[in-house]
Amino acid sequence: MELLKQRILRDGQVKEGGVLKVDSFLNHQMDVTLLNEIGREFRRRFDGAAITKIVTIEASGIGIAAIAAQHFGSVPVIFAKKTRSRNLDGALYTAKVHSFTKDITYDVQLSKKFLGPQDTVLILDDFLARGQALLGLIDIVRQAGAQCAGCGIVIEKQQQGGGALVRAAGVRLESLAVIASLENGTVTFAQ
Amino acid sequence: MELLKQRILRDGQVKEGGVLKVDSFLNHQMDVTLLNEIGREFRRRFDGAAITKIVTIEASGIGIAAIAAQHFGSVPVIFAKKTRSRNLDGALYTAKVHSFTKDITYDVQLSKKFLGPQDTVLILDDFLARGQALLGLIDIVRQAGAQCAGCGIVIEKQQQGGGALVRAAGVRLESLAVIASLENGTVTFAQ
Repeated sequence: MELLKQRILRDGQVKEGGVLKVDSFLNHQMDVTLLNEIGREFRRRFDGAAITKIVTIEASGIGIAAIAAQHFGSVPVIFAKKTRSRNLDGALYTAKVHSFTKDITYDVQLSKKFLGPQDTVLILDDFLARGQALLGLIDIVRQAGAQCAGCGIVIEKQQQGGGALVRAAGVRLESLAVIASLENGTVTFAQ
Repeated sequence: MELLKQRILRDGQVKEGGVLKVDSFLNHQMDVTLLNEIGREFRRRFDGAAITKIVTIEASGIGIAAIAAQHFGSVPVIFAKKTRSRNLDGALYTAKVHSFTKDITYDVQLSKKFLGPQDTVLILDDFLARGQALLGLIDIVRQAGAQCAGCGIVIEKQQQGGGALVRAAGVRLESLAVIASLENGTVTFAQ
């Protein structure tokens, strides 16, 4: 997605340790006009899939998923939670997810009443790096007996291997910008 | 907002301890069509205010704010964070917030580069109970020297006193559904 790549080149910042900061338009401040173009592109790529629910994970995925849902007939969006909250009770789908950056393992949780075998799910998130959170969401969709139409990712960091894991799990993956390298402080996109 | 009140009466669940669960349409699963009507109503109430930024706090406010922003000329949305993350560096506005439900105090954080004296800010969130998170966001907007056009809340639990605190701080508050009582498992709206 050329518009997104140009925005990453213009406003993204490469920090030490292979961190790409896109906090000015994606995951702290959100450019809602860009999110709409992102939603439109997800729709184009998953056109023909009769999506009934969009699933994401708190927090940065929520805005992307909410705006994108408007391009899929305003289907409901469910955001999985990383911590138990008062808003979650009753039966839950859970999946253990290890965060390499924080070196902790947490439970991704989603209420059973909102997902079932009748659903065709599109999973959306902002970043794909090691892929652990995304694999957790895929696991939950499968636990629900729902069909997973695929995963839509705004920025995939190819060198961290998550994309390969998702594809090896037999799940369609559409990443709008795929980064091959952040070496020397320079963003290089995959061909 | 009548549509919202009817939805709360139909799908909201009153739990022990004065908890109103609206996880089927607002803060776990999100009804994007309803969020659009909510955004439209916020615009109606704050019509004439030349909003330049919408500020909210992770996680449940994000979807509401992103959809609402489309009714305010797609101004940028900034979601304040509750924990330090790799996405936050550089200078931060911070405010200490006490959570009565979790009995912890945390720092609300927002990057200084996204908010300044040139901004007119609308603060949006899903719930207003004791008001501590909202007062933290108001404090941050004031630290930035920005003008606070007011706060838009989807559901205010009047009996918990947060609304009175926000108004006492001299800030305009627009709550789309104001709950006077949840006694005996029944939702009673304020007049």
